[in-house]
Amino acid sequence: MTLFGPDNLPYGVFSEPGHERRIGVRLDDVVLDVSELLPWPSLNPFLALGRPEWTRIRGEIRSELRRWRQIALGAVELHMPFEVADYTDFYSSEHHAVNVSRILRPGEPGLPPQWKHLPIGYHGRAGTVVVSGTPVRRPYGQLGPGLFGPAQRLDIEAEVGFVVGTPGARIPTTAWRDHVFGVVLVNDWSARDIQAFEYRPLGPFLAKSFATSISPWVTPLEAFADGKPPEQDPQPLPYLLPPGSGLDVTLRVEWNGTEVSRPSYNHMYWTAAQQLAHLTVNGAAVRTGDLFASGTVSGPTQTGSFLELTENGTRPVRLGNGDERGFLEDGDQVTISATAAGAEGGTIGLGPVSGTVCP
Amino acid sequence: MTLFGPDNLPYGVFSEPGHERRIGVRLDDVVLDVSELLPWPSLNPFLALGRPEWTRIRGEIRSELRRWRQIALGAVELHMPFEVADYTDFYSSEHHAVNVSRILRPGEPGLPPQWKHLPIGYHGRAGTVVVSGTPVRRPYGQLGPGLFGPAQRLDIEAEVGFVVGTPGARIPTTAWRDHVFGVVLVNDWSARDIQAFEYRPLGPFLAKSFATSISPWVTPLEAFADGKPPEQDPQPLPYLLPPGSGLDVTLRVEWNGTEVSRPSYNHMYWTAAQQLAHLTVNGAAVRTGDLFASGTVSGPTQTGSFLELTENGTRPVRLGNGDERGFLEDGDQVTISATAAGAEGGTIGLGPVSGTVCP
Repeated sequence: MTLFGPDNLPYGVFSEPGHERRIGVRLDDVVLDVSELLPWPSLNPFLALGRPEWTRIRGEIRSELRRWRQIALGAVELHMPFEVADYTDFYSSEHHAVNVSRILRPGEPGLPPQWKHLPIGYHGRAGTVVVSGTPVRRPYGQLGPGLFGPAQRLDIEAEVGFVVGTPGARIPTTAWRDHVFGVVLVNDWSARDIQAFEYRPLGPFLAKSFATSISPWVTPLEAFADGKPPEQDPQPLPYLLPPGSGLDVTLRVEWNGTEVSRPSYNHMYWTAAQQLAHLTVNGAAVRTGDLFASGTVSGPTQTGSFLELTENGTRPVRLGNGDERGFLEDGDQVTISATAAGAEGGTIGLGPVSGTVCP
Repeated sequence: MTLFGPDNLPYGVFSEPGHERRIGVRLDDVVLDVSELLPWPSLNPFLALGRPEWTRIRGEIRSELRRWRQIALGAVELHMPFEVADYTDFYSSEHHAVNVSRILRPGEPGLPPQWKHLPIGYHGRAGTVVVSGTPVRRPYGQLGPGLFGPAQRLDIEAEVGFVVGTPGARIPTTAWRDHVFGVVLVNDWSARDIQAFEYRPLGPFLAKSFATSISPWVTPLEAFADGKPPEQDPQPLPYLLPPGSGLDVTLRVEWNGTEVSRPSYNHMYWTAAQQLAHLTVNGAAVRTGDLFASGTVSGPTQTGSFLELTENGTRPVRLGNGDERGFLEDGDQVTISATAAGAEGGTIGLGPVSGTVCP
């Protein structure tokens, strides 16, 4: 079984030594140079073309796989696949929200009162979204009153990100596939100590703005099988219905090479269609290159953050080499990859998104 | 006295009917066409040049005011002066923070515990920052559990915005003038009922993302006299010191032509230098075109939001034509302008930023 066969064909931006950036398509362990068809140094102009062209071009690439020059994956540098316009992050795993609340706000209600009425989200920093492989510098910040230094509780958030192609506002849930081009994996690095001190009442700010990593490969929505829609109670308001399909994606989180979690996107409460509908229902427009992420993907047993995995550092995990970890130490590497049910019945691969913490 | 004389000379982007966008400089009631010197349809390439070039070019424009073609201000259309990269909004008026807390969270402490330790901020939506004159559509949203409709408590926030020219990270307060090009006025339109239901724990989202208006004119920092630095107790951490100078700016808020408030930026607790130092201390980079705003400018008696002015609508203001208002009604127009102490001893004008609410 190959995870990056002809049923997948994600897009990215690559360069060979001494050459300009080009758009490529991953096929197994090679990059297909499709710059003849997509002659830009970034996916944005392609994203702006819209669903009919996305389908036509994917068909053309797929029907003539031997037409394209092949370069070994190991011989290219991968770059940010697109320029991020606005970056929005949601909070749509009930398991994650309940876990975080229990760990950080013991004694308070498990879910905020509006949590099941709307997909809670916030805006992040577009300018610090970086491609997989970019080193992640441990952020400095205020860790308490008068206390300044490098964050001690540096964490990850394993998420699924959605890349907006065509602009729009008040996008009904039924139209999300006209606007969303495809999917990346996201690691929304988070400094829990900075976050705890800063986040009330305007939300996380410096705790997350230092770096957000995304995978270099954007998999078109068309490559995914529909997942089952979530069960939602109470019934959402009409603008959030029908909920749209889920995605059958299972993430894999590796910490210094040891798999520590396999959270499933199937457990998410709100769908991408609902997130996009909510994001735009007030009249706000999305633009080509907007990125919105699912929020940490946690399920009943598998979690997408180390805060949850180690109960805020109190129950360290043991890695393959015997090391124990509560939060990230300098030099640690985290790699998130995923598999998904493909539209043609097989399994496709996503990611990886990887980053190493440096001091 | 002229507010837009040779001591001011703000930059903007204009077009004449049937012509392309050009960079212009406002001098009294005319626009100077400086496209020969700055041949771009947006200020961004100019912003990227940096302080020495900003100074040199301002000097060249100013020393030869008759060299430039003049077009009557009334004969041009004004556009977004620059493309916004990331938009960040602070919360740096102590009076505003205390007022909001008292009105919306009675019984809770007046200021969040970290408020005097760091300038609280959050990321807004860059894609919905619009130029003065753009109609502002009343946003839809969830106003409570199961309650969906147009916002009923639509408000303004009168703010001073800072436009980043040159990129950087970990910018000390002493270097802010190397990175910040100039100043705009900002109206951060806010739907208080949407905000109240959505904002915990990740901050305001749809309540503010539908529109943020800025003035078409960007006044260079060099045009401003230094204001007195704020008095800060407790003393901020070293990375926030020295605080940098304030700006002696007085805003003027007109509601359907009636002046309802004159809040002074002199009362702000955190300076722009401190906001920029905080924003970047974690390692986050700013980019050319980043916009960061002061937060609502409120003083001891004059306030920059209608939430404060009307005590959440309970004490309506009477406008010139006898109308009473708690929050904004459809068709209402708000115009924010300002005067500031100029670097050469006179007074300079800022703004206006104006918007009309439509249903």
